[in-house]
Amino acid sequence: MALPHAQSAQVVSVRPLDAALLPQTQSYAIIKAQQLEVMRVVLRAGELMRQHDTPGEITVQCLQGEVEFQLGQNVHLLRAGDLMHLQARAPHALRAVHDCSLLVTLCLLPL
Amino acid sequence: MALPHAQSAQVVSVRPLDAALLPQTQSYAIIKAQQLEVMRVVLRAGELMRQHDTPGEITVQCLQGEVEFQLGQNVHLLRAGDLMHLQARAPHALRAVHDCSLLVTLCLLPL
Repeated sequence: MALPHAQSAQVVSVRPLDAALLPQTQSYAIIKAQQLEVMRVVLRAGELMRQHDTPGEITVQCLQGEVEFQLGQNVHLLRAGDLMHLQARAPHALRAVHDCSLLVTLCLLPL
Repeated sequence: MALPHAQSAQVVSVRPLDAALLPQTQSYAIIKAQQLEVMRVVLRAGELMRQHDTPGEITVQCLQGEVEFQLGQNVHLLRAGDLMHLQARAPHALRAVHDCSLLVTLCLLPL
């Protein structure tokens, strides 16, 4: 599902996706501006996102479902309504416990 | 209500506040890191936040309630689950239609 990015000053929905549609929905960018990028990451139950990091700080907010968030030796469980902040370059990995969607906000620092 | 900031890699709730508690809850910072700041802004029905701007880009996500968001000549209505991105230095004002809480994420650029 290719969606155009929203523009600044445009109202966009970050409500939970319809549970029946979630399995066919790809992750997508919501906003990409100069300083901030916002995306909805969609993972199906059991799906993994291997360890990676980002150049800037991020926040991850669970919009629906449940995801295990591995950060170093620690695993955190995020459920709908939970938010976590990660430092720049913090390696992390994800595993969806249930179908889930996550709102990820990245700081796009000048490199 | 003075709450300590959450640390990075700490799971925090951004669920709606209990409707009975909202009227006594002050806005508070959730995270203040180097690049990103996250806060919950609480407004009671009819409450105004006068026109202001921020040095960096922001996103505003309505967590509960309803707020009118004035941006230039335009007024946008944000309900729970709506998100908006604002450019740096975009003057904006708010008026709560109903008691509401908003998740505001700011990019803290090096000044």
